[in-house]
Amino acid sequence: MTDQKLKELRRQIDRTDMELVTLLNQRARIVQKIGEEKRKFGIDQLDPDREKNVLAGIKAANKGPFPTDELIFLFRQLFRISIEIEKNDHRE
Amino acid sequence: MTDQKLKELRRQIDRTDMELVTLLNQRARIVQKIGEEKRKFGIDQLDPDREKNVLAGIKAANKGPFPTDELIFLFRQLFRISIEIEKNDHRE
Repeated sequence: MTDQKLKELRRQIDRTDMELVTLLNQRARIVQKIGEEKRKFGIDQLDPDREKNVLAGIKAANKGPFPTDELIFLFRQLFRISIEIEKNDHRE
Repeated sequence: MTDQKLKELRRQIDRTDMELVTLLNQRARIVQKIGEEKRKFGIDQLDPDREKNVLAGIKAANKGPFPTDELIFLFRQLFRISIEIEKNDHRE
């Protein structure tokens, strides 16, 4: 019976993970558009204030139980990856 | 005008980020329940096969443009954080 319960909870995790994959790809597509827009108008690639503000917003929005320091860590990684996605010219 | 376009794209990113924060916390609550269930029935904390299978599923599900290797990296971090969340007894 606890085995059933565990299986059901893991199914819930799997569904959440697929939603995360969808959201991360959705986010990556917006980042690509930002990159195209910046290239079109010769805008500088980076805006360090933007990153700081976004992190502050995330910190304020987090009600847990996900630990805030780990959330900030994950988003820093996401920013790093996004810079790579933004730099690539996908129009070709 | 491009400034307006950039602002709109960034607003879209912000909305996606808030959805990510919500999903990660939703996932953390399920992980807490799994931890409670395991403690209740004295089940071993870790299942390395489970992690391998989840990563394979994520790899197969990813259609891009988010790079698959970075997606796997992020999920590995998420597993590490989840083990910490699972270990903590939040019932006190």
